[in-house]
Amino acid sequence: MLNDNPTNQQVLKHTALMDAGKRLFIEHGYQKINAKQIAAEANVATGTFYRYFEDKASLLLAIWDRDFQHHLPHVNPSMPVWQTIQATIQQELDDLAEFGLLNVVTSVSLYNEAVAEKLAAENAESRLVLERILKTAQATGQIRNDINLRLAAWAIMTIVHELVLQDEAQHTQVTDLENLISAMLSPR
Amino acid sequence: MLNDNPTNQQVLKHTALMDAGKRLFIEHGYQKINAKQIAAEANVATGTFYRYFEDKASLLLAIWDRDFQHHLPHVNPSMPVWQTIQATIQQELDDLAEFGLLNVVTSVSLYNEAVAEKLAAENAESRLVLERILKTAQATGQIRNDINLRLAAWAIMTIVHELVLQDEAQHTQVTDLENLISAMLSPR
Repeated sequence: MLNDNPTNQQVLKHTALMDAGKRLFIEHGYQKINAKQIAAEANVATGTFYRYFEDKASLLLAIWDRDFQHHLPHVNPSMPVWQTIQATIQQELDDLAEFGLLNVVTSVSLYNEAVAEKLAAENAESRLVLERILKTAQATGQIRNDINLRLAAWAIMTIVHELVLQDEAQHTQVTDLENLISAMLSPR
Repeated sequence: MLNDNPTNQQVLKHTALMDAGKRLFIEHGYQKINAKQIAAEANVATGTFYRYFEDKASLLLAIWDRDFQHHLPHVNPSMPVWQTIQATIQQELDDLAEFGLLNVVTSVSLYNEAVAEKLAAENAESRLVLERILKTAQATGQIRNDINLRLAAWAIMTIVHELVLQDEAQHTQVTDLENLISAMLSPR
């Protein structure tokens, strides 16, 4: 971690380590890379790595905090709810596509507790926002009454995330995705 | 691999290695376990491990072939299509729940090509079967015409798999899941 008053030099090294780690994780996979290689790629000594990061997982979490911005949509009450849902889905797709480490994070989350917790928390947050939007829409008759909205919000988030993870997004039109979700939600 | 005419002793060792590997992978995670530990757990010499399996990934693939039976539903033309879809979903849920290594396989697929290929092939097979069922149903007016059935089949499979992977199944009623999927598919 950086201390409270870092020198320029410290900020540069900290940034270089995050950039190097991200590059190497994406190119070779998290498992195959160690602190020594990351330090070398960042042109710093291995000891320097450990001055800033406790371990490889801490570095991954730091990259995540820096590069993965959840742009949660501002729910505008004057906007038709379906438009808000569409905007939420599109935002989520864009955010995920920008965050190149999604595969790495998902893989590491299967055995690293800190990463798993952060992933679960991020997913829970997205899902709660969407669930709230769906509830508002249901209250105004824009969404069918006979589905479980908690499950619907989970299912929509899951589909959007897996589209990106499984490279399925390449074969999918966003309009097809929106049609499918609209079919699931629209009242008869 | 077992040769064509294995002795009883060979079959026993082969089975013991698969059982031991499955136990250890589930308990400690695939990454933390090596061939030596699996051999010890199976009460055989480490060299014996390599007489039957090229490496750890080969063992995992062998366990998979032995224990994960895809029970693809027989599509009965006299059965209402929605019932066939429900049966397919239920079968998929049961199959996944039975196969305790799903988390391990998903994690390993992110960096092992043979495992990734097998997982992709299994998923593609499930999806094709479901897509065929949906097409038949659409032709007989039981499914709406305005959705992409390839995407719908993918989305349904993904939701069912992730329900199991994310432990979401614990909080989910199968009827809620069926309602959601029915909402997505039913004609207006």
